[in-house]
Amino acid sequence: MPAPADFGQFIDDHADEFIKRLASAVAIQSVSSDPSRRDDVVKMAHWLEAQLQSYGVTTVLRDLGTHVEDGHELPLPPALLGSIGSDPSKKTVLIYGHFDVQPANKSDGWSTEPFELTEEQDGRLVGRGSTDDKGPILGWLNTLQYHFETKKELPVNIKFCFEGMEESGSIGLDALVIKEGQPGGWFEGVDCVCISDNYWLNTRTPVITYGLRGVSYYKIDITGPARDLHSGVFGGTIHEPMTDLVLLMSKLVDVKGKILVPGVYDMVTSADADEREIYERLDSSIAEIEEAAGGKIALSDSKVDVLMGRMRNPSLSLHGIEGAFYGGGAKTVIPAKVGGKFSLRLVPPMTPENITPLVTKYLEEEFAKLGSKNTLNVEFLHGGRPWVADMNHWNYEAAKEATRQIYQVEPDMTREGGSIPITLTFADTLGCSVVLLPMGRGDDGAHSTNEKLDKSNFLQGSKLLGTYLYELADVKK
Amino acid sequence: MPAPADFGQFIDDHADEFIKRLASAVAIQSVSSDPSRRDDVVKMAHWLEAQLQSYGVTTVLRDLGTHVEDGHELPLPPALLGSIGSDPSKKTVLIYGHFDVQPANKSDGWSTEPFELTEEQDGRLVGRGSTDDKGPILGWLNTLQYHFETKKELPVNIKFCFEGMEESGSIGLDALVIKEGQPGGWFEGVDCVCISDNYWLNTRTPVITYGLRGVSYYKIDITGPARDLHSGVFGGTIHEPMTDLVLLMSKLVDVKGKILVPGVYDMVTSADADEREIYERLDSSIAEIEEAAGGKIALSDSKVDVLMGRMRNPSLSLHGIEGAFYGGGAKTVIPAKVGGKFSLRLVPPMTPENITPLVTKYLEEEFAKLGSKNTLNVEFLHGGRPWVADMNHWNYEAAKEATRQIYQVEPDMTREGGSIPITLTFADTLGCSVVLLPMGRGDDGAHSTNEKLDKSNFLQGSKLLGTYLYELADVKK
Ligand SMILES: [Zn+2]
Ligand SMILES: [Zn+2]
Ligand SMILES: [Zn+2]
Ligand SMILES: [Zn+2]
Repeated sequence: MPAPADFGQFIDDHADEFIKRLASAVAIQSVSSDPSRRDDVVKMAHWLEAQLQSYGVTTVLRDLGTHVEDGHELPLPPALLGSIGSDPSKKTVLIYGHFDVQPANKSDGWSTEPFELTEEQDGRLVGRGSTDDKGPILGWLNTLQYHFETKKELPVNIKFCFEGMEESGSIGLDALVIKEGQPGGWFEGVDCVCISDNYWLNTRTPVITYGLRGVSYYKIDITGPARDLHSGVFGGTIHEPMTDLVLLMSKLVDVKGKILVPGVYDMVTSADADEREIYERLDSSIAEIEEAAGGKIALSDSKVDVLMGRMRNPSLSLHGIEGAFYGGGAKTVIPAKVGGKFSLRLVPPMTPENITPLVTKYLEEEFAKLGSKNTLNVEFLHGGRPWVADMNHWNYEAAKEATRQIYQVEPDMTREGGSIPITLTFADTLGCSVVLLPMGRGDDGAHSTNEKLDKSNFLQGSKLLGTYLYELADVKK
Repeated sequence: MPAPADFGQFIDDHADEFIKRLASAVAIQSVSSDPSRRDDVVKMAHWLEAQLQSYGVTTVLRDLGTHVEDGHELPLPPALLGSIGSDPSKKTVLIYGHFDVQPANKSDGWSTEPFELTEEQDGRLVGRGSTDDKGPILGWLNTLQYHFETKKELPVNIKFCFEGMEESGSIGLDALVIKEGQPGGWFEGVDCVCISDNYWLNTRTPVITYGLRGVSYYKIDITGPARDLHSGVFGGTIHEPMTDLVLLMSKLVDVKGKILVPGVYDMVTSADADEREIYERLDSSIAEIEEAAGGKIALSDSKVDVLMGRMRNPSLSLHGIEGAFYGGGAKTVIPAKVGGKFSLRLVPPMTPENITPLVTKYLEEEFAKLGSKNTLNVEFLHGGRPWVADMNHWNYEAAKEATRQIYQVEPDMTREGGSIPITLTFADTLGCSVVLLPMGRGDDGAHSTNEKLDKSNFLQGSKLLGTYLYELADVKK
């Protein structure tokens, strides 16, 4: 069942109105990481609730309690739950999005006011939140408006879950999803989940995402002296923590990005020809990846290896050192306590739980081999499991068919190198398929200056999300 | 010729007066690094000038021009030159000291007001500048007062050179010394130099210092991406600058402090039995060094090796990394540009000039071996040459004999691990022997909270400096 014949035309006809609504959403400075903007996050929740209600969605704001930020207790912005339709003969889809945004100041390098949506000549809609994640949320609103104004029934029942703390760790949301996933909860009866909060690989080809890497973040503390020492007085007399730390960190990963912790690669299957073919088909290139990085520094000349390096293989990055000298100039300090920070990106079946013992054991053994009199402590700071979905599930087939209809191409099936932790919460808690169906392009610059959403992606993306609902209704469970 | 019989008694009899004068000096907050205290540094110059004049010293304040601090042009405090005696049959000694001090705030952890000299029950005179370097300067004043009040002629001609920028890099002093060292300059005819601005090894045994290590400070820049990247998106796809940097830094020094740059140890003779004997005799121990460091982390169980590690061997310390993540918490960044900071401590014949090519060549070769696509740049940030004097020069013999008379022990002949750049300037410019004759103990805590000078060190030290002048007059050139 394709979308009604007039759906696409409705979206195009209302483009100006939709862009005006996106401007209203962008104008609300819902920066979740800034306590002084917390009221704006709440205002954004109310704005969005009113929009949903105007199209017949039943809503509720769920209080998530408080959290402590910089020593102050702050009320969390409420989560916004919605529900429209309860026909037991229809499928029920849960739609997630977040209405908070990253901070933005014109002085960071924006060419326009970040909270005034600006339509550029080339069709870019520039503003904070345009693509992350207000544009996609408004894509759903556009679809609701179509059905409301044309008095058409939605092809599926929809539950909405919109939060205002995604950019600040989704505090409180896991507990809410678990609670509402119980029998009698708001999410009871959900058949599948759709999240539109990531991006295409490039600027051309639509994407459906079926996997995310996990992460496991560590700190290696080396302590020795009781206080920072002067290298003139103590250089050559004592075991220096920085020396030990750099030696240990040098044993974690080689110059080609190979992880040196024994046992890690035993957990990862190598890709067969069929799997390599998936990456071969992706519309990407070394040149594009190097352009995104801003340097000709790809680890391989093989596009497949580089894409697998991001999507389906683990990686290890050294982030920095806490406690060492980090300023400009030349300070002759022997730091007393240094904490090396690094993290692994995980792919199934790696988890923080099964990787941490390997990391800790290896570091402790290597440290023992050094023969230093300093003290080592390995600390696990945080982690999140990886996620890979069945890309042939009916939820995905609906998304693929919708993509074909709107864009007339086969979507790139991708896995992302980063993590979107809420994906895993939905998958685990509700036990159903989650599809990531992005609206924006790879160059949208979410979290960066001059964040944008192309007008064509906003309109075609709105059509895509609406069409996905019809394909969902149609596809065989 | 020992000092006059009543000299020691005079010092003891005037103890309270001398301590009161030290309190007056400490009360002037001559913090050279704090632009808002610059007037106090100037005030201190005038205070000291008046003291010198009251004992018949001819003085002049030399304007050193201006310098730029935090973007503001500031007048430098003047250097204070003095001269007393011009008998061509006498030796002429140049005495150096500095009347500026390190910053100090009670809130840093001082148990008393830092700029109010407090005499504790155990004889400690606690206050900023008490030992570094106002106490030693006042030791010279105490000796001048004795000669003035008892109407005795000084046994030598004395030139004074007191500066107010030592704690801030001695800006302007090198040029002054070079100028005044010319024929017709203030320092013409100087036979030897004495500097009292360092410390005993411990709390028991007086020290004469005849060597200082030099330093050569470097930054290793590795650049790759055009901007910081997210490790989720780029981890596993590109050459990460931190990986390369940590690998390079790990090749500089081993866990036992051995420098791995080829050619460095070829420049350093190994100590023969006679030389080891010097360090064996020093009144020090592993336990004391570890207590000073605050950890049982000595590189060796041999006292001789540890002392030589500080005093007569080169060392290499890794200080930190500019541009990497250094904060608390867990940031998943791939830093785009990282600058590893390290420095070598140098001993003769090492110099920044002959060491830098070895360091640069080695790093460039090791980086080439890595096979990274990132870019390396090795930068020399600053350096200073090492200094070792002839410890049997008559200037030293005078200092040794004075020490024997005041303390009834043979002094520990030491070299210091750090640098006092002005030492080298005097030695090179005036071409004469410089002796470092400290007043304070190893636990005085110069630059630290609760800086102190023991009353006994102030009084015995004053006698030592006065007696040194008599021995100097006596000793055979
Ligand atoms: Zn987002
Ligand atoms: Zn975001
Ligand atoms: Zn000093
Ligand atoms: Zn000092």
